[in-house]
Amino acid sequence: VLEIGGETLILTHDMIAEGVHYRAGTDPADVAWKLVAVNLSDLAAKGAKPIGLLIGASLTEGSERFVAGLREVLAAYNVPLLGGDTIRPEGKASFGCTAIGHATGPVPVRTGAKPGDALWVTGTIGAAMLGFRGEAAHAQAYLRPRPLLAEGQALARHVHAMMDISDGLLLDAARMAEASGCTVDIETAAIPFPHGVTDPRTRDEALRWGDDYALLFAAPPGFVPPVTGSRIGEFRAATAAPLTIDGETPTGPLGYEHR
Amino acid sequence: VLEIGGETLILTHDMIAEGVHYRAGTDPADVAWKLVAVNLSDLAAKGAKPIGLLIGASLTEGSERFVAGLREVLAAYNVPLLGGDTIRPEGKASFGCTAIGHATGPVPVRTGAKPGDALWVTGTIGAAMLGFRGEAAHAQAYLRPRPLLAEGQALARHVHAMMDISDGLLLDAARMAEASGCTVDIETAAIPFPHGVTDPRTRDEALRWGDDYALLFAAPPGFVPPVTGSRIGEFRAATAAPLTIDGETPTGPLGYEHR
Repeated sequence: VLEIGGETLILTHDMIAEGVHYRAGTDPADVAWKLVAVNLSDLAAKGAKPIGLLIGASLTEGSERFVAGLREVLAAYNVPLLGGDTIRPEGKASFGCTAIGHATGPVPVRTGAKPGDALWVTGTIGAAMLGFRGEAAHAQAYLRPRPLLAEGQALARHVHAMMDISDGLLLDAARMAEASGCTVDIETAAIPFPHGVTDPRTRDEALRWGDDYALLFAAPPGFVPPVTGSRIGEFRAATAAPLTIDGETPTGPLGYEHR
Repeated sequence: VLEIGGETLILTHDMIAEGVHYRAGTDPADVAWKLVAVNLSDLAAKGAKPIGLLIGASLTEGSERFVAGLREVLAAYNVPLLGGDTIRPEGKASFGCTAIGHATGPVPVRTGAKPGDALWVTGTIGAAMLGFRGEAAHAQAYLRPRPLLAEGQALARHVHAMMDISDGLLLDAARMAEASGCTVDIETAAIPFPHGVTDPRTRDEALRWGDDYALLFAAPPGFVPPVTGSRIGEFRAATAAPLTIDGETPTGPLGYEHR
C-alpha cells in the first residue's frame, strides 16, 4: 500500500513456475490467465481497482498461446499491460506479474477481525480442487480462476478484515484469526461446497485446498453483505489454537504451506 | 509512465535467470545486487527517484546470501522493499524485480534526438566486459553495477533523449537514433574506455558489450552537462543505417540481442 499524491496505490507481485504452480503441458494461455488472475485477486482482497500490469515472461515453446491467454484475461478485466520483460530460460519456465491498483475506499487488512465478528466467504470452496482432479465441469475453476474484483470493491468499506483464499480456506482463515489475535470457529455445515460434493473426505480435502481465490472476510454481527456470500463461522477471543472446526481443533496440514 | 493524482510514476520490471543473465555458482548476494541495480538503472534513465521495489525470488541453496545482497543494495540506494513473492523452483533459479519511482521533472524518452544533437555517455564503456572476463580490477563493474540515479535526475530536464546502456553502446545508440528518425555517428576516439584498454579488438568488443549501465543521452549542441560525461558522437538526418562509426557502417552484431 503506497500513498502517492493523495491516491492510495496497491501493488502486488506473484510468481508462478512450471512444475510448482502448474503442470508441464498446461496450455500456456491458461498459464497467462492464472498469472494475471492471482495478482488481480490480491487487488480484489484490498478492494482495489486495477490500473495496469507488468509481466515478466519466459519465452518458450507455445509463447503465442501465452500471448493469446494474456490478451483474453486483459480484455476480460479491462486492464492494460504497461510493460515488462521476457527471458529465454535454460530450464523450466517461470513468470512474474506485478499488478498496480488504486484503493476505492478504506484498504482492508487481515489483522482487523474482532471477537463476535462473523467469518464470511464468497463463491464456493473446492471447485478448483475438483478441476485439478479432472472433473470437466470444474476445469475452468482451476485453470482460469475469476478474481472477485467487483465483490472486493463492494465489500472493502464494510469489512473488519479481508483476504483472498489462495492456500486453503482453513489455513487462510487461521492466518486471519492469528493476525487479528482471535480464534475463529468454522461451521462446516455452512461451507458453500460446489453442488454434488457430499462425500465427507472430499469436503475435508476441499477445506485444505487452495486456488479458489474466493474472498474471506470478517464483518460485524448482523452484517448483510452487498454481494453473494456465506456466513461460515465466528471469531472469538483467542484460545490455544487460532482455528476450530465445529468446535474441534483440526489435525493435519490446514492448507498449502510455501516451503 | 503512469500519471496518478498529479504525480508521474515510473514502473519497470526486469527478470534475471541463472544460465542466462548470470553463471551458475555466482554468489547469490551479487545476483540480488544486479537484479535491483538493473531495475534502478531503468529508473535512472527516466530521471526518476526510487519509491520502492517488489521482488519475486527463487529460494534455492544460498538464499541467505541473496537476502544479504538484497539488504546491501537496498541500503546503498536507500530504497524500501515493499513486497513480493518467493518460489521454490524445480529447476534453475529466476528472479523478477519491479521498481517504482517518481519523476523529478520531464520524463526523457528515447525518441527525441534531433539532427545536430550531440550523443553523450556517462561513465566508462567496457569495464563490465573486463570484469566478466576475469580482470579483478573490474570484477565489481560486472557483478555490482551502479545505477546512475543522481546523474539521471540531474540530466532529465536537459536532454532530448536518454536511455541506459544494457545491451551494448552501439546497439543502444542505434536504437535511440532509429527511434528518433536519425542516424548517429560515433567517434571512437572519444569513447571513455577504462584506463589501459588500448587494444583495438578489445575496444571494438567493448562497444558491443552490455552490462555497463552507463547513461546514453542526446543533447543540443553546446550543452554542458551537469555531470561527468563524454561527448562521443553526433546525430544527423537519417541515412540508410541508423549508426555509423567514424563515418563507416559497422558490420557484425552491434550488441546483445534478446532472442
